[in-house]
This record gives sequence, structure tokens and C-alpha cells, in this order.
Amino acid sequence: MADASATASPDIDASPGALALPEVFARLSEIGFRDGEGVMRLAASAKDGEARRAFADWMAGAGARLAHDEMGNQFACFDWAGADAPWVFSGSHLDAQPEGGRVDGALGVVAAGCAALTLSAEHADGRLAPRANLAVVNWTNEEGARFQPSLSGSSVFAGAMSLEEGLSCRDGFGTSMGEALAAIGFDKRSGLVPPHPLALLELHAEQGLNLVNAEAQIGLVEGTWAARKIQVTWHGRATHTGPTPMELRRDALLAAARGITAFEEVVAQGWPQLYRSAARLQVFPNSPNVVVSRATVWFELRHPDIALLATAGDAVRDMFARIADETGVRLEIDSDATRAPARMDGELLARIEDAARACGHKSLRLASVAGHDAVALQNVGIPAAVIFVPSVGGIAHHRDEETHPADMQAGLAVLTHALRGLLENPPAAGSR
Amino acid sequence: MADASATASPDIDASPGALALPEVFARLSEIGFRDGEGVMRLAASAKDGEARRAFADWMAGAGARLAHDEMGNQFACFDWAGADAPWVFSGSHLDAQPEGGRVDGALGVVAAGCAALTLSAEHADGRLAPRANLAVVNWTNEEGARFQPSLSGSSVFAGAMSLEEGLSCRDGFGTSMGEALAAIGFDKRSGLVPPHPLALLELHAEQGLNLVNAEAQIGLVEGTWAARKIQVTWHGRATHTGPTPMELRRDALLAAARGITAFEEVVAQGWPQLYRSAARLQVFPNSPNVVVSRATVWFELRHPDIALLATAGDAVRDMFARIADETGVRLEIDSDATRAPARMDGELLARIEDAARACGHKSLRLASVAGHDAVALQNVGIPAAVIFVPSVGGIAHHRDEETHPADMQAGLAVLTHALRGLLENPPAAGSR
Repeated sequence: MADASATASPDIDASPGALALPEVFARLSEIGFRDGEGVMRLAASAKDGEARRAFADWMAGAGARLAHDEMGNQFACFDWAGADAPWVFSGSHLDAQPEGGRVDGALGVVAAGCAALTLSAEHADGRLAPRANLAVVNWTNEEGARFQPSLSGSSVFAGAMSLEEGLSCRDGFGTSMGEALAAIGFDKRSGLVPPHPLALLELHAEQGLNLVNAEAQIGLVEGTWAARKIQVTWHGRATHTGPTPMELRRDALLAAARGITAFEEVVAQGWPQLYRSAARLQVFPNSPNVVVSRATVWFELRHPDIALLATAGDAVRDMFARIADETGVRLEIDSDATRAPARMDGELLARIEDAARACGHKSLRLASVAGHDAVALQNVGIPAAVIFVPSVGGIAHHRDEETHPADMQAGLAVLTHALRGLLENPPAAGSR
Repeated sequence: MADASATASPDIDASPGALALPEVFARLSEIGFRDGEGVMRLAASAKDGEARRAFADWMAGAGARLAHDEMGNQFACFDWAGADAPWVFSGSHLDAQPEGGRVDGALGVVAAGCAALTLSAEHADGRLAPRANLAVVNWTNEEGARFQPSLSGSSVFAGAMSLEEGLSCRDGFGTSMGEALAAIGFDKRSGLVPPHPLALLELHAEQGLNLVNAEAQIGLVEGTWAARKIQVTWHGRATHTGPTPMELRRDALLAAARGITAFEEVVAQGWPQLYRSAARLQVFPNSPNVVVSRATVWFELRHPDIALLATAGDAVRDMFARIADETGVRLEIDSDATRAPARMDGELLARIEDAARACGHKSLRLASVAGHDAVALQNVGIPAAVIFVPSVGGIAHHRDEETHPADMQAGLAVLTHALRGLLENPPAAGSR
């Protein structure tokens, strides 16, 4: 991190949001946290339910009207400008990766809530004259850890995914998203859910080292990389690992292992600039004494250039099929989806850049490799922006994930400033 | 299968056991069975509990006294020869592999129960003069599918494994064997559990093609192959699969995939005569967006010659360590255990061979690659024998597993004949 004093405003921020941030963030960080293991708060789990209720209670105490939709997306609504006024959203997600960090997602929700505290106080004093309403949002299942795909809550809200699709995806134990949401009491629409907003701002930790290396506190995300996600299953035949002669075996795990090994080799050799991973694998029956009959692997390729993903992904699929032939198993492509590179809203970017300047924080324009809820909205034409703050060591999706308190405060200050501008001077709807 | 009429006795067997076999086997086969998926009856699951109660009810109705020990091993006791008389056991196991077959294990329990029905009727008529008591046994967790290691019930009874070790092993969801047994009401000792027997006979399907190819109906298992089971974990580091630069990744799944791939290559090249498998794999956190931080693989090598297992296993371990170095992860050997080749009891083998001849069935001496509960007893000096009947197509641990009814009846006839001889003329204790 850059030394905070070098770039931050010298004034101490005594706004209600700035004062509340450390305590609220610490309280939320405890939910699902275990020492040495990080945060266990999978989407629609009991701990996610606990975090949702803590968020709702906090926001209700700050004067918000709470609502949620059938996907469990939560909205803490400040209806300052009346029923017919447009909306501005800010938020992120409270679900976490298994043994994940405290910052990813949670910071964006807490910071949006803290911004709302400050703006609410200004509104009560007559210092804020909002022409739009504000909602602090907690999107369901951003992570895609328990339920695939990721970003399903924001995608359903945006209309890019049907509600039925969002609710029917199942976790590794066969529980559907709908059943899991019902178990924590978030399956039914509650309250008046706001319409699509004029703008969404999401504060998020960078999950990389660009800001640290540039000694900047504010990242302005211009766009995201494209991603191609290929899920394949090799089908073998269950048989005893003991007496079955080797030549009769049809081993789906051997095929999957060769697939994962060759995936890395083929891409590293032919397209070394691509980011790549195989990070999830489901094996059946997964008994030490039964040759594996089904092995499903989730492969990912990421790069800004969608044409490279097309070529490399096709080469990889051919290789998967060859391995199936060589091992005598059957290959099935379960899904093969390319997420186009996103370009975030230019006007919002300029507003945030101005806000960073006004707050005295150095900013940097950059790309995000990962997807974010804001991207799901931007992709259907809802103006959205992501504001990055630095991750210590670039660590993400790990219990050691951390953002320095001064950087959190810098992000909050910029977010609050930008939201104030959007509420008092909303962008014209449909102008882009 | 050989045409039954060619080798079986032409007389129709009208004994109570022979008459009961089809109906009892069919009834038990239904427990946990789903069309197209096979039998789901994992050790100490609710369905295993159901099968245990069905077995107990059936045997109680036949006049047996039921007992079970703290490992849930069930004993249906026929105390014909008095409290001080020695015991003869026959049985197998009612647990099954995931989506497993109906025959494996269940046939041995049902056949032992049917033999007891016939012998009980003979005893009531004064046609049987037993000098030993008979117990029909259902051993807990033969399969080792849900709880590793396999054969844990019979091993605890034999004294080769401590009760504490048997009860403390955990399934993939963290439930211990003790907790699972408590959930189905089989965690506490009940009734008078018999002592170590003079002899145990286990009827089992072959799980291979030796009998089919030889057109024999009875297999006399002389011994079992040795097995070396190596469980290893590669430890990497959880991090985001998106923004994390490739050179910073420490991917435990990539190491495991390379390990599984190289395991097959190294063994197939250097020791092609070894049977080998990697059939179970646990991955953490198993989320598509987090580089895998832990991957645990269960490897097996099998061969009659224990020296080959030593050499090949050591080469494989060296290779695992090399892969860990190359991928920047850390290797941990969780366990590495060699099961010595077993030699089954010679006197019992001879008695069964005589019984097969007396019943008019062609028999074949052979080795078993797989372990069986009888082997766990034999290995601590309790005389034990395994009688094989043919598996259609050699299929095992699969829903298509099948043994023809005529072959089941042949096995039952030989088992009943041999048990009759053991009860009337028990082998001397400690003579071998």
C-alpha cells in the first residue's frame, strides 16, 4: 500500500459513515469466520442468512425500508425523492468463497451502507437535495462457489438470466438455490423492490497488484476480461478396482486427470498469455474401490481478446475428445459459454475520477480480470461502475485477503462523493 | 454361466433355505434400489439400517437370537450346542458401493441365513446333531466406500483394528462411523455377542471371469492378492482463478492430475502386471473460481508378489514428490499401508471341495484380488474360507452385477453342506 498520508486528504473524516465503517465491517467479518480457516459464508447458507439479517437490521436502524426479490437480492431503500423518482444503487455481495476472506464483497456492501449513513444525515440536515432514491444492495450468489454460475442474483435482477434458471441450479449435495433460499427465509419477494436503477456503483478490493504497484488508492475499472468457461464430463464405467483386468477398465478419473494435465500444457505452450484454471471437479462414485464412472471438470480461460479464447478453447476441446478416445471413455460437453469482455460506463468512470480527485486520492484506470455484479448490470445496459481499492499482496479468495483501513476509508470517501453527485444530479436515463 | 443342468444335481432342492432364497434375496435387493441407478446402501446409512432390521426380523422369525457389537456387526445366533460350545460363523455384508449391485455382500448374508433355515429344520427334526453353535453374520462397512478403510467391522471383531479406530473414521461430510451407527441405532452392544468362531464360511460372487471361463459353479479361494494403498495430499494455495498471475499460482489440483496421469504411465511401463487405480479424490475448496488448495488422492496397487508392490510403490512416491517440486506445491503422504497376501485355511478349503463334489458342482481353486471379511478373520488366525459363485460378465461394483439363480442355489447347497459338516464335526481349535 502507498503510505496513506502521502495521498489521502489530511482532514479527518468525521462523517457518520466513516465513523461506522470499522465497527460494522468488523462485526460482519465475524459471521462465518473461524480462526485459521477464514470466512465460511457460502451463498444461501445459514451463515449467509445471519449476515443478511445483520445487514437488514443495521440498515433498518439507519432508517432504510428493506425489500428483497425472489432471488434473495436485498435492497435497503432510502426513498428520499418519492415513488416516481429514479434510483441509484450501490452494493456488492455478502456471500464468500469457502474458507474465503473478509473483504471480497462484504466491503462493498458495508461501504455502500456507510455512504448511505452519511448521505442520510446530510439529507436530514437539508444539506443533500436528492432527485433520485438510493438503495444499498446485497446481491445473491456472486461467488458461484456453492451454486454455478456466479453472478446469478445480479443477472436475474438485470434480466440476463431467468428467475427459474437462477433458482434451479443445484449445489454439490443436490440442494437447489430455491430450496436453500427458502431454508434461510429469503425465497419470497418482500417489500417493494426498486426498478432498474439509473446507475450502480460497486466498491471492491482489487484482487491483484496494479494499485499496490502504482501506489494508487482508487482503481477505475474500465472493463473486464472475457472468459470462456467449459464444463465437461468424461463417462467411464464403474467396476471393482481390485479384480477387474486392466484392459477392461474405463476410468473417467484417469481421463479427467489427463485432461487437466494436457489443458495446462496445451494452453501454456500455445497461448501463454491466457489465464487458465481447472478448479472444480466432481467424481462419482468417489469410492476407493470403484473405478470412477463420471468425472466432471470446470475449465476456465480468460483474456481480453475474445478471438484468442475461441481458438484456444476449440483446441482444448479437440484435445479432450482425443483423450476420451485414448482412454476408452465418452466425452460430454456439459456447457461452453463465453462471457464477452465488458466495457464499464464512461460517464460514471469520469464522475468517479472527479470524485477521487476531489477527495485527494490518486486513481488508476485498469481492467478487471474477474467478473463483478456491476458487470452483470452493465452488460444489459444499466450504467454501472466498479471502484477498486488495493488488496494487500494482491491476495484474493483466501483467508489472508486484506485491505488496509486507510484504503477502505479512501474508497468510502470516493464512493460517498460520487453517490452524492449522482443523487443530486442523476444521469439522464437511456442517454447512452 | 455354464448351463445349470450340465453340472448341478438333477434333484430339486426342496430344503427350507433353497425355497426361501429367491424371495428373501429379492426383498433385500429392494432396499436402497432405484431403477437405473442400482443399490444405494452405504455403510451405516438409513438404508443400511433398514436392511439390518429386515435381516434381524427375518432371522428372529427363524428362531435366532439377535445380537450386535459396538461396531454394529450383527449376529443371528442359533445356540444349539449350549453356552460353552464353540461357534461356526457364516455371512458377509449388507452395505453396498454407491449405485452398486444387489449381489455383492448381500448374497453371502442371505445364503448364510437360508443355510441356517435348512439346518434349523434338520435340528428340529433330530436330523442334525450340532456340536457347535451357528451365527449368521452381517459385518459393518466391508466396502470402505463411505468410510475408509474397508473391512473395518470384521477387522475390529478380529482384533486387527481397535474399536476406537473403527468408530472414529469419518465420511466425506465429517460424520464419524460412531455417529452414523448411533443414527441408525446400532452403536451400542446388544445381546450376547459370540466369541471368535472355530471357522467362518463366506459365500460371495466372484467379481471376475475365472468361473465363467472354466464353466465352474463353485470357486475355492486359496488366497488373496497383496495390496498397497497410498493416500497422498498435495497442498497448494487458494487464490482467485481470475486475476491471479499464472506464475503466482500453486495449484494442488494440477499436481494431483499430473500425479494420477503419471501413476498410470509409470506403473504401466515398469510393472504392467500390477493392477492399479486412483478412484477417490477430495478437492478443496472445489469452487470454480478458487485455485485448489488441497487435493487428496487414494492410490492402489495390487499383485500377489509383495516385493513388486514395494518397488513400484516407492517409485511412485518419488514421482509424486517430483511433481510437487515442479508445480510448487507441498506433498504429504497421509498413509501408505500394504495388506499382505492372505492364504485361506487349507482344511476348510478341502471340506468345501468335498461339499461341492457331494452336491455335484464343478469347483475351481483360484485367488481373489479383492479383500473380503473372511480374509480379515483369517489374517488373525481364525480359520476362514470364501466360496465364490460366478458373476455374469465378471461385473462387480456396478448396478448390472448379477449372479444366475441356479448359481446362487448351487452356492447355497455347497455352503449348507459344508456348514452341516462343521457343526457336526467341528475342526479342532488352534490346530493350525
